[in-house]
Amino acid sequence: MNIIDGAKSAKTAQIILSALDGEIKNNALKIIAEELEKNRNLIFEANLQDLQESEKNNLPDPIIKRLKFDEGKLNAVISGIKQLVKLEEPTGKTLLATELAQGLNLYRVSCPIGVIGVIFESRPDALVQIAALCLKSGNGAILKGGSEAKRSNKVLFDIILSASKKAGIPQNWAVLAETRDDVAEMLKLSDYIDLIIPRGSNDFVKYIMENTNIPVTGHSDGICHLFVDESANIEKAINVAVDSKTQYVSVCNALETLLVHEKIADKFLPKVCEKLREKGVELRGDEETRKIISDMKVAVEKDWESEYLDYILSIKIVKNLDEAIFHINKYGSGHTDSIVSENEKNVKKFMNLVDSACVFHNCSTRFSDGFRFGFGAEVGVSTGKIHSRGPVGLDGLLIYKYKLFGSGDIVADFEENKRKFTHKKKELKNV
Amino acid sequence: MNIIDGAKSAKTAQIILSALDGEIKNNALKIIAEELEKNRNLIFEANLQDLQESEKNNLPDPIIKRLKFDEGKLNAVISGIKQLVKLEEPTGKTLLATELAQGLNLYRVSCPIGVIGVIFESRPDALVQIAALCLKSGNGAILKGGSEAKRSNKVLFDIILSASKKAGIPQNWAVLAETRDDVAEMLKLSDYIDLIIPRGSNDFVKYIMENTNIPVTGHSDGICHLFVDESANIEKAINVAVDSKTQYVSVCNALETLLVHEKIADKFLPKVCEKLREKGVELRGDEETRKIISDMKVAVEKDWESEYLDYILSIKIVKNLDEAIFHINKYGSGHTDSIVSENEKNVKKFMNLVDSACVFHNCSTRFSDGFRFGFGAEVGVSTGKIHSRGPVGLDGLLIYKYKLFGSGDIVADFEENKRKFTHKKKELKNV
Repeated sequence: MNIIDGAKSAKTAQIILSALDGEIKNNALKIIAEELEKNRNLIFEANLQDLQESEKNNLPDPIIKRLKFDEGKLNAVISGIKQLVKLEEPTGKTLLATELAQGLNLYRVSCPIGVIGVIFESRPDALVQIAALCLKSGNGAILKGGSEAKRSNKVLFDIILSASKKAGIPQNWAVLAETRDDVAEMLKLSDYIDLIIPRGSNDFVKYIMENTNIPVTGHSDGICHLFVDESANIEKAINVAVDSKTQYVSVCNALETLLVHEKIADKFLPKVCEKLREKGVELRGDEETRKIISDMKVAVEKDWESEYLDYILSIKIVKNLDEAIFHINKYGSGHTDSIVSENEKNVKKFMNLVDSACVFHNCSTRFSDGFRFGFGAEVGVSTGKIHSRGPVGLDGLLIYKYKLFGSGDIVADFEENKRKFTHKKKELKNV
Repeated sequence: MNIIDGAKSAKTAQIILSALDGEIKNNALKIIAEELEKNRNLIFEANLQDLQESEKNNLPDPIIKRLKFDEGKLNAVISGIKQLVKLEEPTGKTLLATELAQGLNLYRVSCPIGVIGVIFESRPDALVQIAALCLKSGNGAILKGGSEAKRSNKVLFDIILSASKKAGIPQNWAVLAETRDDVAEMLKLSDYIDLIIPRGSNDFVKYIMENTNIPVTGHSDGICHLFVDESANIEKAINVAVDSKTQYVSVCNALETLLVHEKIADKFLPKVCEKLREKGVELRGDEETRKIISDMKVAVEKDWESEYLDYILSIKIVKNLDEAIFHINKYGSGHTDSIVSENEKNVKKFMNLVDSACVFHNCSTRFSDGFRFGFGAEVGVSTGKIHSRGPVGLDGLLIYKYKLFGSGDIVADFEENKRKFTHKKKELKNV
């Protein structure tokens, strides 16, 4: 099936899927988990072939690492699916109920978005995870993985499709796109694909965002900042800085730039720099920073715009809170920025004026994550400002429709003043 | 100021605006209403000059009608602004509150989206209305009106800007774009403009949607259907059909295609067609319809895809509910579709499987409107499926940010099992 026919058939199947009972969808998820369990050897075998070919083709280590689908990763996706089953049914929830006029009642009801195009690099576990999220939320899915994972993806996809069929989910709710040309084609299918979720490197996500009119949920850069205010508790500031930078360096919520109030720099910088260097962090400072600690590289303009994803940190001394906020809004990527301060007024100002998805007080930027936020499932992290922002749970795959129930009501009666709107709030019962 | 500098300065001003107290914004709105009132003659004079030039240039009648800004329209926008003042403050509302762990509390807080690019044809009242909505919700605005309204727009914009300045709103929160090239430029400014709202003809909106990577809230087509089910109450069905088609023909929520169950067609069609013809509606039917009422034009494929916005209605007889749903999902535009039926099961199926922003039972499609829905203010109607759908109130100009408050918390403690996440729901107080 070519990708256009695939997308059309997913659109048709999704309409049926959107109205299925939560029980049917949960049952499908359970069967998927079982079949993944049963077919582990088949999966590992396909993955091994992909790995061998990738090694033969000298693909870079990080890709091979992401491509590897072992016991640990399989167990993690299976346990993820089981958690998803336990989450309450996200569709069909009444979010707003209003009596427009006597006998004319309006309900805003949650429903799936439609067909989600998922484009990911290497990681086969992403295929399973996102397919399960789409199914739980009643969305169709067009899945396109990296060619280096083609055998793994095919096996996983076939298991998911046959398992969901057993549970009574319409056949083509999910479609696997297999060729490179399919990506370019997908990006044009705004008639059939309602949202695109890219998972991969910054450049990859940027490419997707710049080459489609279909809405995209995702993030490219994650340039996170920590501002240590004049009033900061130094011990807290050190702990938070070290955790934000070094707890896991290659992720989007890791710290990239440390901003320090000039009045605390003398006391704070020598201590935090020592700790960071113990962890192997390379430091790059602006002129003022290097007056306090001279043996570090100069931070240049490019550093403020860099997401290192590595053991590197840029440091800048600022005159005041305003300069810190200005710097973050100018160079940041709107992902996560944190302040360490004991001054309530400054904290409030920072949190209101820093224009980022996540603004934190006295805690590590690394908390910015769907699981840590308690969402139970993570669709991704969005630095967009439409629909969903920051760590995105199942909510990100939902929208709503309006259902209006009348008994022959016409607008003319209201325009001619024969009837009046009441606009009374009603109880939020599901309809 | 060129449009790029304008957008940059709006972005900076909007950050300050986003954190202003509701009182300041409301005060600005009050002063805007007063100044519009005071400067009515100035406004009418500028509008007269625009009208005269448009007549001289032989612009089409509908454009001249929309361009005209008279007492009635001025009073309407002033009263709209006054209503807006009364609406509760939309930003800073806590939407979700969770204790992640002891002493580590997460809040999802509503906030403005950022800078809204508004591109509209002719109507100067749209400029005032959307600027007021942006201000109330704390968003910056780049406003671009049609060149035929340039004098009216300039006067209105200057009044809004100087009035808001008096109230302490940062100067460049709103920017007027004045040249045709500015539109093409705006569509590229995804670094500074977060959302585009086009207001105008279908072709115009379609053009905008296809030529930008910035998210767009709006609708191009409004191809609304009414399905009269086998079990329909004939009188209700006639009333609803006539109201949906004729109450106001040139709007997006007017009826364009009537679908009739074959088992009720004999009884229903002669009566409804008589009523519709009395109102001057031209009827176009499929073969089956013309077997019952022969003196009407043949409806061809193109009719099912047409938004007439005129006294024309296409009619098709369908075998059953499934065929009606299939037709609507195939040819509809996902705006508003209604069923007249006394069969509860069919109503439920229709409302779940018709994939439109608004699905109605036993009432006119014309109810699909922000004011009738009780939203108090209308940003527009969206047929998109991301962020907002259907009639859009102030909500459509809002997103949220996450605020996390800790006291030195680090992720390492949780990864090393020294602390545990609690994920307890908290009371929704504003922070």
